[in-house]
Amino acid sequence: MNKNVPAAAAAILAGGRRAAARLLSRAEAGDEAIINDLRALYRAGGHARIIGFTGPPGAGKSTLVDRLVTELRTKGERVAVIAVDPSSPFSGGAVLGDRVRMGRHASDEGVLIRSMAARGILGGLAPATGDAVTILDAMRFDTIVIETVGVGQSELDILAHADIVILLQTALGGDGVQTVKAGILEIADVLVVNKADTQGSDKMVRYLTEMAAHAAPRPDGWVPPVLAAQAVNGAGLDLLCDAIGAFFVHRAARPEVDLARRRRQVRARVLALTDAALRRLLLQRGDAGLERRIDDIIARISDPHDLARLLSQRGLK
Amino acid sequence: MNKNVPAAAAAILAGGRRAAARLLSRAEAGDEAIINDLRALYRAGGHARIIGFTGPPGAGKSTLVDRLVTELRTKGERVAVIAVDPSSPFSGGAVLGDRVRMGRHASDEGVLIRSMAARGILGGLAPATGDAVTILDAMRFDTIVIETVGVGQSELDILAHADIVILLQTALGGDGVQTVKAGILEIADVLVVNKADTQGSDKMVRYLTEMAAHAAPRPDGWVPPVLAAQAVNGAGLDLLCDAIGAFFVHRAARPEVDLARRRRQVRARVLALTDAALRRLLLQRGDAGLERRIDDIIARISDPHDLARLLSQRGLK
Repeated sequence: MNKNVPAAAAAILAGGRRAAARLLSRAEAGDEAIINDLRALYRAGGHARIIGFTGPPGAGKSTLVDRLVTELRTKGERVAVIAVDPSSPFSGGAVLGDRVRMGRHASDEGVLIRSMAARGILGGLAPATGDAVTILDAMRFDTIVIETVGVGQSELDILAHADIVILLQTALGGDGVQTVKAGILEIADVLVVNKADTQGSDKMVRYLTEMAAHAAPRPDGWVPPVLAAQAVNGAGLDLLCDAIGAFFVHRAARPEVDLARRRRQVRARVLALTDAALRRLLLQRGDAGLERRIDDIIARISDPHDLARLLSQRGLK
Repeated sequence: MNKNVPAAAAAILAGGRRAAARLLSRAEAGDEAIINDLRALYRAGGHARIIGFTGPPGAGKSTLVDRLVTELRTKGERVAVIAVDPSSPFSGGAVLGDRVRMGRHASDEGVLIRSMAARGILGGLAPATGDAVTILDAMRFDTIVIETVGVGQSELDILAHADIVILLQTALGGDGVQTVKAGILEIADVLVVNKADTQGSDKMVRYLTEMAAHAAPRPDGWVPPVLAAQAVNGAGLDLLCDAIGAFFVHRAARPEVDLARRRRQVRARVLALTDAALRRLLLQRGDAGLERRIDDIIARISDPHDLARLLSQRGLK
């Protein structure tokens, strides 16, 4: 890699907010020309704590995140929020206006809120989420919150980016308890039953607590706590902050667990980037050699496994 | 590739049903040792017409597919069904018993029904679906039906395998019309409003018809028809068979459109296989060189884009 830091990256490392906004937009647009900026910024990063929030639509994620941002600001932290918006996958643009989301934080230089459009028909994190984390981390935000609706692939995707995953649930939606998906405890580090004044919330808390207590032990030895909260009035926010703190203390005391999680994250991130590169290669680029190979498969002179092997196995040779 | 056809593939090509069942199981288990069998079988295939059925849970897909199987059998076709079951993603096994699904077809040698567990927490086609198609196609089934719940990624995945995609909807589920996802007309070649005796079905048919009429023209010039059906008593099945027939006539008359679709399918299939190979490489295999590169990324001596570039760009060189 070129030791010279590219211009946009240099501007961002010097504290340029407008340069950062521009690079975030280019990352979201999938502009491949910024890769060297991203690489330089990644190498300058590693400061931020990354908190993922996920849960069904209407669980109150935005409200809780806004509360948390205010709380972290009172502690002097600089906080960035990446709100992944799945409501308009085909528009290519985020529907929630960042200005609306900014609300009371609009005039606060210590807060940056950025909406990104989700991927595909069925949600999932925006492909550029990882790049956005890289940019915000390089800007020396202390905490970066990734907020995403827990549908489609996003609950899994968020694992690739977040140091801690917080899952919001509510007792709403009819059969409450049954809506909690199997395997959720492998993903969530903290469970929050929001709208705790709703009927059935106590039952939901008890159910999840039992689930967490009886699940197969996690490799990191952490038992996800289950909290009741009312984001709308701030009730339970102190418990949430404590739980987040406790989780990072737990991790810090177990460097081998921490390293294992980081390795998983890097692997997932590299996989996502490699997938994206392959997708471009296979689905978009007009590579003559590739076209011929594909037509050979259609003619059954070759087969899909043959080409897949070629594409995947030469990588590390 | 070795010109000698491996033993399992040879047995299947000779009509061995038990050999096929064993290979299907090994494919589902992700046994990589069968790749040469799959390659030989793929090269011997290309006979079957592949029909994808998708739609929300409870739309009546299984019932409609069973009806269709019976109908195709009366025409003398040999029919295989791959039922991708998303209900138990963590069990690693399909919940619906194939014996139950077989029902009236149990003693019919011209029918094979195979359930496969879906991928991941949130559905999506089973990774081995493509391999199952390869095996069943080599067995000279005339029609292969892939049936999958339209959640998670599966609606998109099915495009990689099916020659025609049939989407089931019902007027059930509250806000009926609103539940039809944007972009569905890019995926569905035929739309069926099942349980047509349900209140609101007429409205749903009109709404979808309007949607199909006013959508941006598809590159293949096909306007997806919208049919009303009652799978439970067979009403509308004749219309469905006609629509399927009309679609294949439409395609056959446009060889360049047909080729474009086949190319897209092969690209998607190769991408899925390459993704899977990379996933194994990145998430499972203990490659020392790779481990070192990942630790370099954690140490911020390197970065994820660097390794992704290495993995993706060397493929075709």
